[in-house]
Amino acid sequence: MEEQALLYEGKAKRIYATGNESVVRVQYKDSATANNGEKKAEVVGKGRLNNEITSLLFLKLRKVGIQSHFIEKISASEQLVKRVSIIPLEVVVRNFAAGSFSKRLGVEEGKKLSKSIVEFYLKDDSLGDPLITDEHVDVLDLASADEVAELKAAALKINDILSGFFTEIGVTLIDFKLEFGKDADGNILLADEISPDTCRLWDIETQQKLDKDVFRRDLGNLTDAYETILTRLGGQLHV
Amino acid sequence: MEEQALLYEGKAKRIYATGNESVVRVQYKDSATANNGEKKAEVVGKGRLNNEITSLLFLKLRKVGIQSHFIEKISASEQLVKRVSIIPLEVVVRNFAAGSFSKRLGVEEGKKLSKSIVEFYLKDDSLGDPLITDEHVDVLDLASADEVAELKAAALKINDILSGFFTEIGVTLIDFKLEFGKDADGNILLADEISPDTCRLWDIETQQKLDKDVFRRDLGNLTDAYETILTRLGGQLHV
Repeated sequence: MEEQALLYEGKAKRIYATGNESVVRVQYKDSATANNGEKKAEVVGKGRLNNEITSLLFLKLRKVGIQSHFIEKISASEQLVKRVSIIPLEVVVRNFAAGSFSKRLGVEEGKKLSKSIVEFYLKDDSLGDPLITDEHVDVLDLASADEVAELKAAALKINDILSGFFTEIGVTLIDFKLEFGKDADGNILLADEISPDTCRLWDIETQQKLDKDVFRRDLGNLTDAYETILTRLGGQLHV
Repeated sequence: MEEQALLYEGKAKRIYATGNESVVRVQYKDSATANNGEKKAEVVGKGRLNNEITSLLFLKLRKVGIQSHFIEKISASEQLVKRVSIIPLEVVVRNFAAGSFSKRLGVEEGKKLSKSIVEFYLKDDSLGDPLITDEHVDVLDLASADEVAELKAAALKINDILSGFFTEIGVTLIDFKLEFGKDADGNILLADEISPDTCRLWDIETQQKLDKDVFRRDLGNLTDAYETILTRLGGQLHV
C-alpha cells in the first residue's frame, strides 16, 4: 500500500489523502482534549469508539434523508469521507443548559430551554473558539445570510432527528456541536463527527453523563461511558 | 432641602428619588472603572464632564426626534431623568473594530467594518456582562422579538445621528454602548448616558483616543480628553 499524505491533523482526528481527490480518509485518534487543548490524555479505545459511533449515526441520518460527508467505515478507527472545505463555524445546538452556556449566562445545568437554540462559534483555536453572532458571521465574511439560514435550519432538523435516536435508547441529547463543509460544487454538507466527544448525552433515568464531560470533569472511565452509547445504539466494538 | 432616597448606586452614577415618582435624579460620580471594576480611580471632574456631555447629546438627539429619559440638567454633576425600568441589555453599536471585538475575534483595531453591527451584552456584573445572541435574549426572556427588533433599529438610527454629530467636530465614532428602559406605560426609551465613558471616540486626523480607553490603557490625562469632546461639541464646564 502506498503511503498516503497526511493533509491535516486535528486534536482528535487525522485526515489523509486517498487515490481519489474528492475522497479523504479520516483516522480517529485516541487523544482526549478539553478546554481548548489545556487538558490532554491518551485514552486507548476512544478513537475506535468515536469511529463506530459517528459511522453509525451518519448512516442512521442518511436513512432519514440527511446527507453528510460520510462514505463508509473502512477499519476499526478509520472512515472514508467526501473531501469538503470546512466552514470555520462550530454550530452548536442546545436543548438544555449545560457547559459554557450555564457558566457564561448563570443558568443551572440541566434546565430545559424554552426552545432549542443554535449558536455559532468561530472555529479558531488561537482565539479559543469564541461565541459569535450572526452579524459577526456577516462582517467577518464567514458565510452568507442564506448560508447562515441553511446552517441553522439543518442544525435544528438534525437536532430533532438525533434527539429521537437518543430518546429511543434512554439518553437525553443536552447539546451538541456540528461542523459543515462545502464540496467542490459549493453544496453544504454535514461533516466532522457526531460522537460523545461532540454531544452532551445524559442517561434519561439517572442523569449520568455519557460524554466527554466524564473526561473534562474527571467523573470516571471515559471509554465505559462511550461504550454504553455505542452498545445502546446497537453497535459493537470490533476488536 | 429634604434628603432624597438613594435608589441605586452604579460604578459611575448614583440615582436618587425626587418628589415626583416618575422622575429620578442622576448624580454623575468622579469614579473611573475599567475591566468590570478591576481597575478603579477617582478622576476629579469626570462626573461633571460626563453630565455636561450626556446632557448636550440627549438635547441634540431630542432636536432631531430621538426621545430619551433625559429631562434636564439641574447642576454641574446632576440631571433629572424619567424613571424607567432598565432592560438588562447593553446594546453596543460598532462601526470600526476595537476593544473586545478586536481581542475576541482577532481583528485589527481601527478596521472599518463592512457594515455597522449591533451586539447585545447581558447586563450582569457578576457574569462579566457576557456577549449574547438574539436566541439567548429569547430563552433568557430578556426581551421579546419585537423589542429586539425595536432596540436594534433604534441603536442603528442613533448611530447614524451620533456619527454625524461627531464627524462634524472631527471625531470618528468607533463604537458605543446604549441602555434602554421602559417607562410606566411600557414604552422603550433611550436611557443611561452617552459620554466618552460609553463611546470610543477617535480624532479623525490624528486617531488620538478621546474616550475611556485613555484610562483603561493609561494613555494620558482622562479629563483633558473628555474636555476636548465637550469643547468641540460647543459645551463648557461650569466650574
